[in-house]
Amino acid sequence: MNFASDNTAPASAEILAALHAANEGAVSSYGADPITARLREKLNAVFETTLLAHPVGTGTAANALALATVVNPYGAVICAEEAHIATDECGAPEFFMGGAKLITLPNRDGKILPAQIDAVMARARDGGVHHVLPEAVSITQATEWGTVYAVEEVAAISAACRAHGLKLHMDGARFANALVHLGCTPAAASWQAGVDVLSFGATKNGALAAEAVLFFDPEAAVGFERRRKRAGHLWSKMRYLSAQIEAYLENDLWLRNATHANRLATRLADGLAAIGTVQIVQTMQANEVFVAMPSSLITALHEAGAHFYEWIAVPDLDVPVVRLVTAHNTSDAEVEQFLRCAGSWSKRLAA
Amino acid sequence: MNFASDNTAPASAEILAALHAANEGAVSSYGADPITARLREKLNAVFETTLLAHPVGTGTAANALALATVVNPYGAVICAEEAHIATDECGAPEFFMGGAKLITLPNRDGKILPAQIDAVMARARDGGVHHVLPEAVSITQATEWGTVYAVEEVAAISAACRAHGLKLHMDGARFANALVHLGCTPAAASWQAGVDVLSFGATKNGALAAEAVLFFDPEAAVGFERRRKRAGHLWSKMRYLSAQIEAYLENDLWLRNATHANRLATRLADGLAAIGTVQIVQTMQANEVFVAMPSSLITALHEAGAHFYEWIAVPDLDVPVVRLVTAHNTSDAEVEQFLRCAGSWSKRLAA
Amino acid sequence: MNFASDNTAPASAEILAALHAANEGAVSSYGADPITARLREKLNAVFETTLLAHPVGTGTAANALALATVVNPYGAVICAEEAHIATDECGAPEFFMGGAKLITLPNRDGKILPAQIDAVMARARDGGVHHVLPEAVSITQATEWGTVYAVEEVAAISAACRAHGLKLHMDGARFANALVHLGCTPAAASWQAGVDVLSFGATKNGALAAEAVLFFDPEAAVGFERRRKRAGHLWSKMRYLSAQIEAYLENDLWLRNATHANRLATRLADGLAAIGTVQIVQTMQANEVFVAMPSSLITALHEAGAHFYEWIAVPDLDVPVVRLVTAHNTSDAEVEQFLRCAGSWSKRLAA
Amino acid sequence: MNFASDNTAPASAEILAALHAANEGAVSSYGADPITARLREKLNAVFETTLLAHPVGTGTAANALALATVVNPYGAVICAEEAHIATDECGAPEFFMGGAKLITLPNRDGKILPAQIDAVMARARDGGVHHVLPEAVSITQATEWGTVYAVEEVAAISAACRAHGLKLHMDGARFANALVHLGCTPAAASWQAGVDVLSFGATKNGALAAEAVLFFDPEAAVGFERRRKRAGHLWSKMRYLSAQIEAYLENDLWLRNATHANRLATRLADGLAAIGTVQIVQTMQANEVFVAMPSSLITALHEAGAHFYEWIAVPDLDVPVVRLVTAHNTSDAEVEQFLRCAGSWSKRLAA
Repeated sequence: MNFASDNTAPASAEILAALHAANEGAVSSYGADPITARLREKLNAVFETTLLAHPVGTGTAANALALATVVNPYGAVICAEEAHIATDECGAPEFFMGGAKLITLPNRDGKILPAQIDAVMARARDGGVHHVLPEAVSITQATEWGTVYAVEEVAAISAACRAHGLKLHMDGARFANALVHLGCTPAAASWQAGVDVLSFGATKNGALAAEAVLFFDPEAAVGFERRRKRAGHLWSKMRYLSAQIEAYLENDLWLRNATHANRLATRLADGLAAIGTVQIVQTMQANEVFVAMPSSLITALHEAGAHFYEWIAVPDLDVPVVRLVTAHNTSDAEVEQFLRCAGSWSKRLAA
Repeated sequence: MNFASDNTAPASAEILAALHAANEGAVSSYGADPITARLREKLNAVFETTLLAHPVGTGTAANALALATVVNPYGAVICAEEAHIATDECGAPEFFMGGAKLITLPNRDGKILPAQIDAVMARARDGGVHHVLPEAVSITQATEWGTVYAVEEVAAISAACRAHGLKLHMDGARFANALVHLGCTPAAASWQAGVDVLSFGATKNGALAAEAVLFFDPEAAVGFERRRKRAGHLWSKMRYLSAQIEAYLENDLWLRNATHANRLATRLADGLAAIGTVQIVQTMQANEVFVAMPSSLITALHEAGAHFYEWIAVPDLDVPVVRLVTAHNTSDAEVEQFLRCAGSWSKRLAA
Repeated sequence: MNFASDNTAPASAEILAALHAANEGAVSSYGADPITARLREKLNAVFETTLLAHPVGTGTAANALALATVVNPYGAVICAEEAHIATDECGAPEFFMGGAKLITLPNRDGKILPAQIDAVMARARDGGVHHVLPEAVSITQATEWGTVYAVEEVAAISAACRAHGLKLHMDGARFANALVHLGCTPAAASWQAGVDVLSFGATKNGALAAEAVLFFDPEAAVGFERRRKRAGHLWSKMRYLSAQIEAYLENDLWLRNATHANRLATRLADGLAAIGTVQIVQTMQANEVFVAMPSSLITALHEAGAHFYEWIAVPDLDVPVVRLVTAHNTSDAEVEQFLRCAGSWSKRLAA
Repeated sequence: MNFASDNTAPASAEILAALHAANEGAVSSYGADPITARLREKLNAVFETTLLAHPVGTGTAANALALATVVNPYGAVICAEEAHIATDECGAPEFFMGGAKLITLPNRDGKILPAQIDAVMARARDGGVHHVLPEAVSITQATEWGTVYAVEEVAAISAACRAHGLKLHMDGARFANALVHLGCTPAAASWQAGVDVLSFGATKNGALAAEAVLFFDPEAAVGFERRRKRAGHLWSKMRYLSAQIEAYLENDLWLRNATHANRLATRLADGLAAIGTVQIVQTMQANEVFVAMPSSLITALHEAGAHFYEWIAVPDLDVPVVRLVTAHNTSDAEVEQFLRCAGSWSKRLAA
């Protein structure tokens, strides 16, 4: 029973098979290989537009490189307080951007609002050169609280961005999970809603180590390739990065994996909600369930062999909150076993 | 006939097999997995010491992270004029070090000399705070000119480093090729000769994308792990990085691969030396052959299907210099075909 | 009636006279002049210890250089939400520190508490390499809200710093104003209370452009001088910087100037408190008065020729807050005129 | 007899007088004062164009800020090997530019040639993303070897810059000395010859600490003001910076000071040339004389009380080279005394 993170999961068999297929003969390095060329075409087709796609090995690299490309060192990025870029990347955005700041916004469900962006920009205008200059907004889809921005919500944020001359970055580490929830096309969920640059994640949803930075606005991409190189993120044997992402997209593997993970997260959330002593603290919309539960239940589940982490406490709740993450390899059996554990603990408590 | 670079080569079958073997079930992420633990033990055994080993995906990352860990932003690194860190990493060391400079030394064979280090340090002392402070020396083994520092040469450089309070970094992108040439143990070629930190390369010699930064001096490693994280070089699914390096070391795969590449490079060099109209411009000691040859021969070889690059011109030579790189997958047939092409061109010329 | 800022004030006549006195003949540059040597002695005497003193031209330079010297790029600085370093230096600390973050703490009066530091450190420990590592605390004395840390409060913060291995930086842009309020020695207010490095301000209190970074812990100062040089903050004609600070200290000019400013701020605060329709929102302890007042009074005062700024709104107060700053050149007449304006407006309102 | 550097000189009386005149009453801070406004107008008049002028306190700040504004972190600046930015600023340009590199060019007289720029750009094009991207050229006027670029030479460099899309920066720490030598207008020596941004020095030629960054191309200045603020180079009491530069320009003080220094340097050079045992190693065109002289003469001069520095040795010369700098305060008597010392040493030698 492993619900610790989707990055504890192995890779999909199809992706390993693609590495094998790619392992044939000499090909040009640094992205001038036929697999990378095919990947570019594939991404254009999937996103129904001509985009600039740059594979990298990690999500932190994708986010930090994307932001550094659109924000000056004297600039700033507006994001949610819990944004991965603000809390879990050890200052990578600040490093890559040359010291630019993150301006973090409080929120209840991982989502920021256009009015918050307006307020930040009003203050920034007043501050003149004494204050950093916001140049981008970064939103996470699905969010760090397992919620998903509706397409209209993204569009409203994008409208605020355009009004203030800000670029819109989407951290799509769990873009597939969000997309499956939204039930729309990749295009509708990204550039058609006004996203300028997307960190398109594959690692958490079936790859070994593969993400792609997708620029929908080619002007926003100026300098990206040299930034990637000087950050050590240009793979010499690029074929092995591109092959992962190609296989990820092939035959909708990415959507099938995310559908599986989301279904089991829903089952987990529904099953837990039926147990009176726990509380689902966020609307479950992707593959992460946040549950407030008594410490004694946490202990009981850990003793039964379940892996998961305690999360940030929720204000005004006097029990801890845990995060349960499902992945493409989570089994129905694991979920049912977890629910049985929680259920029997609850019955013992009631008895 | 591909002699363009060892990074155009595919991965060794054993390394792909290791990825498969690693692809089983959920394991802890970010390096807390059993494969990474095994790799640490394996590296300790191979290098006959207790070292700190940190896998990363690219050689540029390994070099830049290693140097940033031992050099302050107001510092400097002394290296050869042709050092990869100085010429082919788009300023990665400067970026990671926060603006510290590279002080490059002219040389004839890719190797720097202790006396050159002494001279730099004498000038730096005189300059006071107006000058950057050299804090490390970086040497490449095998060098960018295909030569190999003798163990005694490394030890002499290390002695100069210690005299001046400098750390010694070795860029070992082709460490295996150098080691095979030297015929000594990994320990003798590294920490026993005074190397403080080694970028231990595997990508060019059979991995998909895997290097390890090896600190022989634990005090020199302070801060490395946070630097790796904030540079986006900490893989969440670390097992896939560690598994590559483990397989690389298993059953001496790394040495067998390098022995193969070196043998074919020797055959290439010897075969070409026997043709009167070309000139081997550096002593061939690893897997790179540098050859001065007439433009018409270059054209003839390219037309025959050979891939390779023109290199930096050698002073006082009026013909271009090309670089020929062999790898673990180079075949005897490719080499012989190349030599035949060159030989028949030479005969036609003589006729 | 100028209460906009103490940096709108001219310089003290004594400081200009010192520039004249310094303007004689050729002297060695970059700090090897006799005036700088004398200043070092003077500062040792004033602070009753042997310290390392480095003059710079601006307060932002003093703060950012001090912090960069004691914090790694992967580190962080803990400070108040309203700290000048966090809000008014356009990201200077982040730039100088190479991307390290500021962790800002909410507060009611500009002061942070030891328990808040403990809480940040507990979270940082849990986060491992995914989080930045706090390495310093920065407090402002007097604070941005015009309050002054008691010596015991500084000592308690210092104790928390030592418990967690953090350096303690004090932004003393208004150190003289705080000191006059505290009525203790400079030593008691700084190193004896556990401050490791002090940005010792003179500009706001009578200099043209002069601050000094004072390191009480010489080990903490390693690298400072090269950092100052490479930031363009080493004056070639250093005598003109040192002469300002020497004159500032001579005959207690600094304390006389601050005493004057504090006295008039007290008069302003007392006078305003006597008018029913305004509210002093912070305990006035230095030379800044924060007053909540109706917009119509703000307009009336501006129309009467008073210069001052609206400040951050105070939660749960429905009237704006203004900041009134007195300086060494503020006259009693200005203050009385301001109070008369406010008083007559108040009477008109009551009528 | 002080010929150590023009920054050992005191300030001109007119500039100190301007500080006094500026020291009246409260004025707006950070550049919104009337003196700064007047300075802008004055600079427009002197340079016969509408430019963007930003005062800072040091030459290193002026250079590093100017370059960081026109060069990306993945970029590079082409300059002479002896350029002050490359040798005497402790890596300030690299720090401010976020790690961009300096590409230094060998030369004989401190001047670089358009053909060298062409050659660098040809190599950079070939290197693709593996190499940094040159985005600016920086030339020093007068050069570090005391020579002066002819207007036509600057124009030819500018033409090469424009052909390659590079900005042209001029380090004018001794711009006045160069201008006096050239005998042309400031406009002819700067923007009319194709300079995009000029570090306009005043400190070495009579100010206490004052330089201005002059952007002739407003588009090139985007972001400069926030960069200055976050580097700690925005003076709160800006009037004292602006007043220095205004007085420097008033009544041609700058040109009178430079004319004086150049005249005495010429006298020094001529006088020394007449002594057989020394050799002027560079054509003297500004206020620096470079002289090869026997060690025994150096000793004799030092013993006679002369201050000056040994300089970089000149290849193929077996005697040391010294640098003699004159300034606005150098007296005829000092020069004559120096020449007498050298002359009598020479006679003793011949005897």
